[in-house]
This record gives sequence, structure tokens and C-alpha cells, in this order.
Amino acid sequence: MDERLKKQLDFSLEIDKEKNVFRQTHLSQHGRNENDAEHAWHMAIMAYLLREYSNEEVDIAKVMLMCLIHDIVEIDAGDTYAYDPEGKTTQKAREDAAKERIFSLLPEDQKAELIALFDEFEEFQTPEAKFARAMDNLQPLILNNSNGGGDWKEHGVSADMVYKRQERTKLGSEKLYEITDKIIRENIRKGSLAE
Amino acid sequence: MDERLKKQLDFSLEIDKEKNVFRQTHLSQHGRNENDAEHAWHMAIMAYLLREYSNEEVDIAKVMLMCLIHDIVEIDAGDTYAYDPEGKTTQKAREDAAKERIFSLLPEDQKAELIALFDEFEEFQTPEAKFARAMDNLQPLILNNSNGGGDWKEHGVSADMVYKRQERTKLGSEKLYEITDKIIRENIRKGSLAE
Repeated sequence: MDERLKKQLDFSLEIDKEKNVFRQTHLSQHGRNENDAEHAWHMAIMAYLLREYSNEEVDIAKVMLMCLIHDIVEIDAGDTYAYDPEGKTTQKAREDAAKERIFSLLPEDQKAELIALFDEFEEFQTPEAKFARAMDNLQPLILNNSNGGGDWKEHGVSADMVYKRQERTKLGSEKLYEITDKIIRENIRKGSLAE
Repeated sequence: MDERLKKQLDFSLEIDKEKNVFRQTHLSQHGRNENDAEHAWHMAIMAYLLREYSNEEVDIAKVMLMCLIHDIVEIDAGDTYAYDPEGKTTQKAREDAAKERIFSLLPEDQKAELIALFDEFEEFQTPEAKFARAMDNLQPLILNNSNGGGDWKEHGVSADMVYKRQERTKLGSEKLYEITDKIIRENIRKGSLAE
């Protein structure tokens, strides 16, 4: 087998491990914890279906790919819960090391391309990154909301903490932030989220 | 909330159930059975990384979306194992009913778009469908190969049966069929696959 294809297949096999990285979010119908691969799949489809609500015009193939690969580093670095301030302090160092190891399995050009895409998502500046990050917020929100806010209750998360994260959805989509705000307010009203 | 967005979010929540549809393929490192959402995520990334090997030029955003949605009908219809002739006889009727129910949750234009994309994948005629179907073959092949062909052994699948399915990869990618053939031959040689 030629070297280039071998590298591409080695990387393809390596990322299979993302299916074993579990998140704090639970599947709908009070299901089990969700894993990163499922979360990424869900975000990519939602990005496609909801792209009309992006504040700015986006290259949807780029957004979808960003959604699909944004958590690959967690194969080594593990999932850091959105509301875990301690985990957050070491997250960047853990993810940088993982990024280097995992994407280095690819041929150089694809390594550079995927790292650039991963960094673009993290830096949160382009229309595509802002819309993909809005999906990263909205996807677990609709699952958690469907379960009566169980994930927030389990971790004693307050409305302030949720707003701090979810407010950034506004940068990707004003329209989707409206519905986000509505969902958060309903959960406060029902006592699923502490004020 | 406006009716259009409500429908899009209802559909988004409904497809969460795809994460509970388990396949016969096992994750690498002798892991658990894989589910449809994970399989679709994996195929979409592989399609992007391996697009240079498509026999014909493809619209990669379309291929990725096709990969992501091609198993949504299995939420109702269940997974039909590639080497289950009995399941195959009722597969189309089960999947047609599921297609109508699930995609009808979307606004009309998106329902029509996703059904057209699903049908295009099934009909196997366009360059995008041929390449997406090559991924539908290659993705479980690399997992199963990494596990010493365990999925084939479990189901007593023969090389003839595997070739019958995998040969169609050739229609999407001659190059990826070469490596497919190499993997099958190695598994026959090692006794993982009965001749």
C-alpha cells in the first residue's frame, strides 16, 4: 500500500477511539451518556439544517467538517465538562499535545489542513467557527432540555453559568440565541436550573 | 417559536435516537458494537480525507451529508446486517415507511431535499452516491480487519459474500477497492474469512 493511503487509513482507524470518549450530556429519553462521535455527528447535521439562521454567510462544508473533527483531541485529552473550571485550566495544554500526536498520523498536507480547521474552531473568529460553536452549544441544550434539565441538576449548574456559555451562541446566530434564551428561561421557571 | 424552526428542532431531537441503533460491527480494540450515528460520523470524515481516490469528481459536501443521514431510517426500520438475506427481503418496505415518518418532521422543502439525498444514496447512480457507498463498505471493513475479522467469524460469513458486497466499492473508487481486495485476501490467508 502506498505511504499516503496507509497514513490516511491509520488516522481513520485511530479516530474510532473518539466513540469511547463520553460526555456529561445524556441522550434524549433519559438515555445513557453521549459520546463525542455521536455529538459531532449530531452537530454536523444540525449545522446543515439550521444554516439559514447563521448571522453571516457560511461555507457549510467547512462548518460540517469543523463540527465532525472538533473533538478528536479528546481521544487523548478527555472531555472537559463545560462547567468544570478546574478542568478548564489544563484543557489547552492537554489538547495541544493530543492535536500534535493524532493529526501527525495524517500526510503532512492533511495534518496542516485539519489542525488549521481545529484552531479556527477554537479561535472563534470566522463565521464558520461562530456557527459551528453555536451548534456545540445548541446540540447538548436540546438533549438536556428534553430530559428536564437533568444534566444541569446533576452538576448543580446555575443559570449564570449556562448563560455565560450559551450567550456566545449569539455571535453565530441571533435567531438561535433567542430560542436558547427561551429554553433557559423555561428551565429556570420549572426549577430545573438554579437562578 | 416559529413553526419552521420548531420543526427543524423537533427533527433534530428525533434523530438523537439513531445513537441507539446498534450494528453488527464492533469498535476497534475489540470494543462494543457500533451504533449508526458513530458509523455515519466516521464515514463522513473518511469521505473527506479520501476524496482524492473517488473515480469521479464529487461534491464533497453532498457526499458528507449523504453519509451523515443515510441511516436515519433505521431509527424505525432497525439495522439490517449486510449478510442477512432474510432481513434484506423486507428492508425496503420497512425503510420506506420510516423515511416518510421521520423526514416529515421537517419543513416541506427540507423533507424533500433529504429524501432526495437518501434516495440518491440508495439508487447508487451518481458519483456522490458511489463514493458514499464505498465509505459505507470501507468503514466497517477497517474496523473488522483491526479486530482480526471477528465480525465475519461471528456470523460465518464467507469470502464470496464479502466480495459480493465489497466489489461495489470499485464503482466509487478503483484505488480503494485495491486495498479492500488486499484486506480480504489477507483475512482469507489468516483463516478469518472462509473461502
